[in-house]
Amino acid sequence: MIIVMEHNATQEQLNRVLKYIEDRGMKSYIHKGDLLNVVAVIGNEINLNPENIAALEGVTAVKKVQEPYKLVSRVSHPEDTVINFPNGVKIGGLERPVLMVGPCSVEKDFDGLLQVAKAAKEMGCQFLRGGAFKPRTSPYDFQGLEEKGLQYLAQARQETGLLVVTEVMDTMDIPLLCQYADVLQVGARNMQNFKLLKALGRINKPVMIKRGPAATIKEFLLAAEYVVSNGNPNVILCERGVKGFDSQFSRNVLDIAAVPIIKKLSHLPVIVDPSHATGKRYLIEPMGKASLIAGAHGLMFEVHHDPDNAMCDGAQSLNIEQFKETTRVFNKLIGRIDYDNKNK
Amino acid sequence: MIIVMEHNATQEQLNRVLKYIEDRGMKSYIHKGDLLNVVAVIGNEINLNPENIAALEGVTAVKKVQEPYKLVSRVSHPEDTVINFPNGVKIGGLERPVLMVGPCSVEKDFDGLLQVAKAAKEMGCQFLRGGAFKPRTSPYDFQGLEEKGLQYLAQARQETGLLVVTEVMDTMDIPLLCQYADVLQVGARNMQNFKLLKALGRINKPVMIKRGPAATIKEFLLAAEYVVSNGNPNVILCERGVKGFDSQFSRNVLDIAAVPIIKKLSHLPVIVDPSHATGKRYLIEPMGKASLIAGAHGLMFEVHHDPDNAMCDGAQSLNIEQFKETTRVFNKLIGRIDYDNKNK
Amino acid sequence: MIIVMEHNATQEQLNRVLKYIEDRGMKSYIHKGDLLNVVAVIGNEINLNPENIAALEGVTAVKKVQEPYKLVSRVSHPEDTVINFPNGVKIGGLERPVLMVGPCSVEKDFDGLLQVAKAAKEMGCQFLRGGAFKPRTSPYDFQGLEEKGLQYLAQARQETGLLVVTEVMDTMDIPLLCQYADVLQVGARNMQNFKLLKALGRINKPVMIKRGPAATIKEFLLAAEYVVSNGNPNVILCERGVKGFDSQFSRNVLDIAAVPIIKKLSHLPVIVDPSHATGKRYLIEPMGKASLIAGAHGLMFEVHHDPDNAMCDGAQSLNIEQFKETTRVFNKLIGRIDYDNKNK
Amino acid sequence: MIIVMEHNATQEQLNRVLKYIEDRGMKSYIHKGDLLNVVAVIGNEINLNPENIAALEGVTAVKKVQEPYKLVSRVSHPEDTVINFPNGVKIGGLERPVLMVGPCSVEKDFDGLLQVAKAAKEMGCQFLRGGAFKPRTSPYDFQGLEEKGLQYLAQARQETGLLVVTEVMDTMDIPLLCQYADVLQVGARNMQNFKLLKALGRINKPVMIKRGPAATIKEFLLAAEYVVSNGNPNVILCERGVKGFDSQFSRNVLDIAAVPIIKKLSHLPVIVDPSHATGKRYLIEPMGKASLIAGAHGLMFEVHHDPDNAMCDGAQSLNIEQFKETTRVFNKLIGRIDYDNKNK
Repeated sequence: MIIVMEHNATQEQLNRVLKYIEDRGMKSYIHKGDLLNVVAVIGNEINLNPENIAALEGVTAVKKVQEPYKLVSRVSHPEDTVINFPNGVKIGGLERPVLMVGPCSVEKDFDGLLQVAKAAKEMGCQFLRGGAFKPRTSPYDFQGLEEKGLQYLAQARQETGLLVVTEVMDTMDIPLLCQYADVLQVGARNMQNFKLLKALGRINKPVMIKRGPAATIKEFLLAAEYVVSNGNPNVILCERGVKGFDSQFSRNVLDIAAVPIIKKLSHLPVIVDPSHATGKRYLIEPMGKASLIAGAHGLMFEVHHDPDNAMCDGAQSLNIEQFKETTRVFNKLIGRIDYDNKNK
Repeated sequence: MIIVMEHNATQEQLNRVLKYIEDRGMKSYIHKGDLLNVVAVIGNEINLNPENIAALEGVTAVKKVQEPYKLVSRVSHPEDTVINFPNGVKIGGLERPVLMVGPCSVEKDFDGLLQVAKAAKEMGCQFLRGGAFKPRTSPYDFQGLEEKGLQYLAQARQETGLLVVTEVMDTMDIPLLCQYADVLQVGARNMQNFKLLKALGRINKPVMIKRGPAATIKEFLLAAEYVVSNGNPNVILCERGVKGFDSQFSRNVLDIAAVPIIKKLSHLPVIVDPSHATGKRYLIEPMGKASLIAGAHGLMFEVHHDPDNAMCDGAQSLNIEQFKETTRVFNKLIGRIDYDNKNK
Repeated sequence: MIIVMEHNATQEQLNRVLKYIEDRGMKSYIHKGDLLNVVAVIGNEINLNPENIAALEGVTAVKKVQEPYKLVSRVSHPEDTVINFPNGVKIGGLERPVLMVGPCSVEKDFDGLLQVAKAAKEMGCQFLRGGAFKPRTSPYDFQGLEEKGLQYLAQARQETGLLVVTEVMDTMDIPLLCQYADVLQVGARNMQNFKLLKALGRINKPVMIKRGPAATIKEFLLAAEYVVSNGNPNVILCERGVKGFDSQFSRNVLDIAAVPIIKKLSHLPVIVDPSHATGKRYLIEPMGKASLIAGAHGLMFEVHHDPDNAMCDGAQSLNIEQFKETTRVFNKLIGRIDYDNKNK
Repeated sequence: MIIVMEHNATQEQLNRVLKYIEDRGMKSYIHKGDLLNVVAVIGNEINLNPENIAALEGVTAVKKVQEPYKLVSRVSHPEDTVINFPNGVKIGGLERPVLMVGPCSVEKDFDGLLQVAKAAKEMGCQFLRGGAFKPRTSPYDFQGLEEKGLQYLAQARQETGLLVVTEVMDTMDIPLLCQYADVLQVGARNMQNFKLLKALGRINKPVMIKRGPAATIKEFLLAAEYVVSNGNPNVILCERGVKGFDSQFSRNVLDIAAVPIIKKLSHLPVIVDPSHATGKRYLIEPMGKASLIAGAHGLMFEVHHDPDNAMCDGAQSLNIEQFKETTRVFNKLIGRIDYDNKNK
């Protein structure tokens, strides 16, 4: 930790900073500059609260040199985490990128869901996604089928062999969801619901965390750290766009650079959701391809058997025919990436 | 609802839009323009999903003319909501603006909390705030005293008569919090934790919702709508800064304009938290004054008996002496505003 | 144009709106809703100032249905613009994506520039970029070689046959730059320097406009409209990242979705600059590939013969060896895209 | 400057960093940490390019400890700058806050302008503002009366004694503007038009710089540094809102905290423009009051004799009656602030 003193800080103020550090069992070293004095703290800065130091009189800035996430960092764990599913599917590292598809929410028409699931299986996708509990901005929007929706997903899994990804919105629902789902998804709006993250650290199913629309990459990794530090190492990160100043043509700004950045900082798998990021059907293909070629370990996107009549997010869903066409494009690219990875 | 067709939309695409509207029991009217055709939908647009219409072929834009929030809107409820507490304190409308003060988190030193509470009482504040359950970005930071903290708050209330505001982080904790708190606060990170909001709609204590750091005003009002539409009309809104692109000198951008905007759109009381918004002690006074003069129904800010050693957010907390000095300034301004309100 | 009246607007206020429209030679139609009245204006809305209408009493919102850009829009000009250079290079449409490379600024070591230019030529790049006039955030940073820099670029062109792209910062410098450059670049900070844009509309060289860091896509297209409406149809758009809330790992957020969005709205060519967007050398390759596969008509990125000693932006520049390696990857992808385009 | 090495950096990489520093005549000191090594550079870091150091292999972060602005900083110039006008008006420090009012653009109806100017004089305002050269996002919007507009402003000054503030958009127009204006304003879109800033450093009239919509406070101060370092110490800063993610109810987010932050960092006067920040007439009064009480040295806002028919920005302009009412409120507050300042 580096502590920068104000240009007119007194010797007394400096001494107080030094004592503060010493009292906490750390050592420090002073650099006297022409304009500013700088105190370097030696040792593990975990024991120091930077905000409190910043509030000491005469201090103008505190700069941390260590990142606060540890278990999810490549510093402590250099090799890629690869998550293995019982049916042989793998996510992460140099494994073949995966596809997670399905409707935004599971609706009461089970046949529609099954059509999507069968098409997904046919096209080589590995995961069926669908919300049974739905976070909706307005209380007047459809809130999900709840347990009935989970049963539908489980039934579709039985008929196709696809793995099921679905969202958990509350700690109370975790036991129920664990009965039905293969991956529990934390929605973007719950990315910093720390009670939920802690509870998910104590289950033995993989957890997928979607990036909050205003979450920095550091905050995103710290959300994963909550799950991992509570005992669950199987976390998948999902980039899905950040809030920008222009939502006329795309709901959010898809931050594709987050993929190579996270892969440099962390060993966890990272996938991308181009449907939610853009809110536009025609952007799924170009943004999906861009994410894959930038190194994403998979894509999640929305498919509905009848998007015009979907209960939610029809505008960002492909119909089954469009889905097949788009997935043929993705599969071709995935094949090429997989070949390159295998021959690295 | 207004539906704008693409410049090269076909008659068939237009007909499909018209049929879509008709199938849902609504009427429409077509304006033929030189370049673009526009369809106006007549009736209550609640029955139409704008995203699905936007996804119909040939549609380039859908513009809603009604806002999705109803119960919290002045359209349906023109008079100000004033929340009354059993001890006679009121928030909202033209009532005297209130002050909510206390440490970020309740710590194991009860005497420190009591010092703050007594100073708050002495200075005429109405509420003691303090977190027993703490949302922390990092799992390695102090997570709160939990029930012990609630007991401390209740004890401080008993000794001072102040009302207690504390944060709820999980639906499971609501019954416990209702035993101790006078106002349950929803933190910024949980503003769209819809399960929590729904559950808070079913209690009979006032709820204070902090604005999410990337929440639009519409999303903020819809969060309140979740609580009100589930049965609890006593909601306080709290502006606490939004994410900006420059966090070098202030953690967030305090959006003071949200105060007059929300007061125009909604009848609910709205207060401001200048501590969390800025993260800087020296900004509490100017930003607090600016919020009050712009029409805030109150302020919430942090006071700690020993900020240098606070477990969290010391840098944005006043010590007791600074608190008294700042509150004298606020009280003078509050007196003037109250006088003007009473003589309106 | 659609004008939404407030729920409590008076008949008199409504009449005033209708008269306002009529006075400007337009017709209107009123939809009476349960809660709100809506006025639809029929005809070319160019004659109406939406801000003034929004300011009429009783009006709550004004929604435009036509976009303000015309000449750059596909509505008026459906075919792709392809810019042809005298040496046969083309940009836009289904032409082979181009590469523009070189140092951030031209420095006094001409041999270094020539090394870069020769490597660029060898790798099949079409353009040499380099700043002679440099916009620098701090007045104490290197401000460019000015005319001497232009002479160096011209000399490098003579030795390699590459086309020269360089930045124009002031209307006064346009004649000088036209003597030396093949493309005049408008920097992100000057994207709304309207005097400069108008003046560039009167030259007969292609102009490349970089997107401002806080410019919406509509504002970006309107900047191009300034140049085109003043007489110069040869405009290239360059996405280079927008300001976000997290600059710890990437300077800006590269908005790759802008590429397919702009290609849908406009016929102009659009390229991407992954160097400035991210500020990080290691992100040039993944973000460059992602941009190309999303449909960019080219890439611009920084190469320096000795990045450690570059006068500006060394951290985002490749050295010559890295450049060759990265360009081999890009060329392979460009070849595949070109093949697919030719076989569409 | 503090240089943080990667956790797996080699000794060779560390040595190269040390040599880089030594070659530039600086000294360094190494802190060996458990996980990371940190190099502290001793001396004036102006001689080092942090981006180049960041690009050296094995370096993970570079943290500057000195701010790049000097002349505008309180470090080098602790006393407030107060700008004196020939007619006795002063801006800055503890002087009475000023009011700058007038239409967005000067229009061909001179009488309308004169009505505004006379009302401004009557209400005790010091400055008449109005654009003769107008930066407009769309090339099809009114672009200003140019020299004719300047003549109108000068004539209104002659009849009222108000000082004239008007915008400069291009270096070529500076001599003309200096003939007519008392303060030359740099618009938000030109805040980083460095050629213009440099040229304004060479005139002997005060310059007012509006904050760019995506400019950090550091960038804003560096824009002022361009003017001051080129010889003109009389710079006024004007906060006018930054781009946010929610423009439904306010065009930009008015960053009032910038006022006390800038006053802490710099000695230059800082004023606020609530008209452009919000784009809404009804927000001028609350946001103006909030700005003044937070410490602004003045306000600039828009007044038009006939806002419904204004050529630009009618929605954010007050008519003359509203202006008088609002200014009475401002004057009362200014009187109180002035009294408090005089008695500090």
